[in-house]
Amino acid sequence: MPKQVDHEARRQAIAEALFRIASTKGLEGASLRDVAAGADISLGQLQHYFRTKDEMLLFALQRINGLADQRIRERIEALGGTATPRDILRECLRGMMPLDDKSRTGYLVGVAYFMRAVHDEALRGLAQEGIPQLRAFFADQLSRARADGELAEGRDPEDEAMRLICLVEGLSTYIVLDVHTKRQALRMLDRHLDELFSGRPPG
Amino acid sequence: MPKQVDHEARRQAIAEALFRIASTKGLEGASLRDVAAGADISLGQLQHYFRTKDEMLLFALQRINGLADQRIRERIEALGGTATPRDILRECLRGMMPLDDKSRTGYLVGVAYFMRAVHDEALRGLAQEGIPQLRAFFADQLSRARADGELAEGRDPEDEAMRLICLVEGLSTYIVLDVHTKRQALRMLDRHLDELFSGRPPG
Repeated sequence: MPKQVDHEARRQAIAEALFRIASTKGLEGASLRDVAAGADISLGQLQHYFRTKDEMLLFALQRINGLADQRIRERIEALGGTATPRDILRECLRGMMPLDDKSRTGYLVGVAYFMRAVHDEALRGLAQEGIPQLRAFFADQLSRARADGELAEGRDPEDEAMRLICLVEGLSTYIVLDVHTKRQALRMLDRHLDELFSGRPPG
Repeated sequence: MPKQVDHEARRQAIAEALFRIASTKGLEGASLRDVAAGADISLGQLQHYFRTKDEMLLFALQRINGLADQRIRERIEALGGTATPRDILRECLRGMMPLDDKSRTGYLVGVAYFMRAVHDEALRGLAQEGIPQLRAFFADQLSRARADGELAEGRDPEDEAMRLICLVEGLSTYIVLDVHTKRQALRMLDRHLDELFSGRPPG
């Protein structure tokens, strides 16, 4: 009887080995051979799934984006049906920050991709792919808030969506560099949201 | 007669070779051998200046920080003695963004260091070293603006200084990833400054 191979479990093991290596040594240091060893399979078995390093990287990037999406969706669902746009945005933004081991690894793999994406158009397409959707989702929430009179005067939902994404990128960088603590970064995010949502509900 | 070697020129050539390699292949890809070849000297000659890769990296990081400081100082001087805190901050912040080849290379080398610094405490110390000074300088400018009644109400100079640094970090990331154009990023920076400096001059 041929040995049954759980392909999904194996892809998962490969992705996890890659994440571990990428978040400690960077992606440049992650050879197919290292990843195979980390996933406890042979190089030949790994190449059954990914023939080149770029194929493996593309898979891992999609996986990371997918995991982050799922984590954020769960957080929003946990807020329940009465969540305000501000609640939803706050959960999303916190979900994007390196506040625990999982999100820290995801963040560092993202930076490692960024470094490759700068010089590789195909990877750049994927690295930037999630941003317009994220921005559109944030802008929708901000438009909802504006309709409810909760947004500060003169704020444009599209611009504010992108400003939030940029701010969280910077806050995250300086958490990882120990320039500020997670607590300080979260306080700064909350103050930004305070200003953004300083409209008066109609009355 | 012994051959005269201009050590400063040679260090400069080494740093430039390292920057070129780091901004195209990342720092992981920059071996001492590659850098020697790029600087058109032998490996032995390179090792006269730097025995290890880490020594070379520390030198290059200090050099990058020094060049960025100098560029920004020149911009501020060019503004002349009547420059307002807003003018000065705007020049500094633009100087930190990847708007031309030089600043783009500097930015990418900075990200490459960041990836190493995450796992190396000595490098992390250096990578974060410039931030508190930068933050203090920005906070000083913002305090001056507050004294002149130019700062928006309720803004704390220290917090706003760090928010500016974080925002510019994120704006820069998404310029390099082609998510927004330089023009769009600069417009977003100016809108942020508009809000920050929306106080009324006394009298």
